[in-house]
Amino acid sequence: QYSTGVRKVTLIPGHGIGPEITVAVQKIFEAAKVPIEWDEVDVTAVRGPDGKFGIPQRAIDSVNENKIGLKGPLMTPVGKGYRSLNLALRKEFDLYANVRPCKSLDGIKTLYDNVDVVTIRENTEGEYSGIEHEIVDGVVQSIKLITEEASKRVAQFAFQFARDNKRKKVTAVHKANIMRMSDGLFLRCCRDLATQYPDVKFEERYLDTVCLNMVQDPSKFDVLVMPNLYGDIMSDMCSGLVGGLGLTPSGNIGKNGALFESVHGTAPAIAGQDKANPTALLLSGVMMLRHLQLAALAERIEAACFAVLREGRVLTEDLGGASSCTQYTAEIISKLH
Amino acid sequence: QYSTGVRKVTLIPGHGIGPEITVAVQKIFEAAKVPIEWDEVDVTAVRGPDGKFGIPQRAIDSVNENKIGLKGPLMTPVGKGYRSLNLALRKEFDLYANVRPCKSLDGIKTLYDNVDVVTIRENTEGEYSGIEHEIVDGVVQSIKLITEEASKRVAQFAFQFARDNKRKKVTAVHKANIMRMSDGLFLRCCRDLATQYPDVKFEERYLDTVCLNMVQDPSKFDVLVMPNLYGDIMSDMCSGLVGGLGLTPSGNIGKNGALFESVHGTAPAIAGQDKANPTALLLSGVMMLRHLQLAALAERIEAACFAVLREGRVLTEDLGGASSCTQYTAEIISKLH
Ligand SMILES: CC(C)[C@H](C(=O)O)[C@@H](O)C(=O)O
Ligand SMILES: CC(C)[C@H](C(=O)O)[C@@H](O)C(=O)O
Repeated sequence: QYSTGVRKVTLIPGHGIGPEITVAVQKIFEAAKVPIEWDEVDVTAVRGPDGKFGIPQRAIDSVNENKIGLKGPLMTPVGKGYRSLNLALRKEFDLYANVRPCKSLDGIKTLYDNVDVVTIRENTEGEYSGIEHEIVDGVVQSIKLITEEASKRVAQFAFQFARDNKRKKVTAVHKANIMRMSDGLFLRCCRDLATQYPDVKFEERYLDTVCLNMVQDPSKFDVLVMPNLYGDIMSDMCSGLVGGLGLTPSGNIGKNGALFESVHGTAPAIAGQDKANPTALLLSGVMMLRHLQLAALAERIEAACFAVLREGRVLTEDLGGASSCTQYTAEIISKLH
Repeated sequence: QYSTGVRKVTLIPGHGIGPEITVAVQKIFEAAKVPIEWDEVDVTAVRGPDGKFGIPQRAIDSVNENKIGLKGPLMTPVGKGYRSLNLALRKEFDLYANVRPCKSLDGIKTLYDNVDVVTIRENTEGEYSGIEHEIVDGVVQSIKLITEEASKRVAQFAFQFARDNKRKKVTAVHKANIMRMSDGLFLRCCRDLATQYPDVKFEERYLDTVCLNMVQDPSKFDVLVMPNLYGDIMSDMCSGLVGGLGLTPSGNIGKNGALFESVHGTAPAIAGQDKANPTALLLSGVMMLRHLQLAALAERIEAACFAVLREGRVLTEDLGGASSCTQYTAEIISKLH
């Protein structure tokens, strides 16, 4: 799928702490001799000819050309006419599966030490269709759109992911007892695909039950696949179990491209102060390397990062440490060798 | 609102373990001399004149007359034409607010010891509208319906609940960044009501953020108010933090009635074996007593139950004990004096 040699990757530093954590990742990748040429683009909302705000054309062209990107947090201006640029990117490139692994990290103390789950979220439709109407004054409907096509491809993705990564089980998460037709369709697609993956165990569970069981015993779960909104919730919840959005990576995968991103905010309060934690973006970069079939490099960088977290001597302030982003980055680089 | 003297209360034992836990609650209430006369009704789906399955008329009449009920778990038969009877009851009596308190319990070991939250869930519309269509083959829409009327009354309920119960804060939980019109309307209603309750702190948070923060530090939250599905998820998740559905009560409140229920399942595997844990139904009964303004009795029964849990000598098997439902019940009764 990808040419060997140097890969060109679109780099979207984003806003707030985005640029500093991006530099951190670039430094670590450079030290590890990752064969990547970055094509840096700015993604700040611009007003298009139709008066609406959107992604700059230069960024769209870059992703379309490179088919792969790494991005930091984006600020969405508040107000009418603005829509989340994060969502716009997922839509623009039809990145239909959002993959969010959450694994307990040595050295990061949380209440849980046995988390190892991967949320796979349908990323293009469902509750995120954007179709809403005010029927009469004070009566609004939002449309949750579920299609067989999108459900099948994300289900297929989940089972294939489980097989490729030697995971044992896929759990379809749904409320088909309530939304019988829409979640029912999603569930049927999962059941269909399950028959094609006899080597992967399949189970179906209600969303509320999964939430309850997850906080009690995350080791019950492995790979989870679900409609858009449920995935939004579940992935954040699971991230909370292992330390939060500053530590967990995310990848948006489509047929013609993939975008890896840290899903934390822009943290304007600490932006520009060399205090930000680049881990989520770095681990998203590691996911990207695996996607590019640079597994050995991915392992090496991940191991260096995990070692620094485990040792706990050089940590950023959000993790209770006293080190700067630069120091943390240097420490990871020192572990590469 | 309620006459003094003996109150007539509709009792719906339900299915599976329902009857045994109902007997347990009745015994405890009797021992505590609770002035209640039970009107016991069966709620098994019956086929109506239109061929559809529904709640038996006798049960409907009883709740309409008594305006208050206590119910165990109901089994919904699987198959076409059946809809959840739990939902049918909420709809039939327009029980618009579902109240689910979750508080860490002494003696119940979980990962958390600082949980004290109350989920208030809009109980009549939202994602539970039941309106769904297959647009074309393989394309389904489900309609999330948000009205100003229902949003206002549940917001009002939440703020009034916070004030009455001397709670400090109400958090509105939403995804108005995605469902701008529907969750936007819900949120505006909460903001409006907040201005009428200057004594109660108000904040608004994204659902995904609340899920993440809740598993990391539940003490951040107090009273939470949200649309139907979000409440379904959040209440189960919070229940998981304190020990699960076997321990947490639930009340469905409407203008013309209220129904208190345990929200766990019918547990057919242990039904009839005197092994069931009646705590959730008992604590739902305690909520009901408070609703009936029998606060002193409520305190006494709750204290007896909490004492037995705290001591940990006589517990049912689900809590790691070796006692029967009957023994657990007797132990609670012994603490009443
Ligand atoms: C920023 C927001 C629109 C987004 C979402 O709701 O999907 C975020 O929560 C995420 O999970 O990436
Ligand atoms: C049984 C089911 C229909 C119900 C719901 O989804 O509301 C349950 O989960 C609840 O919370 O009472």
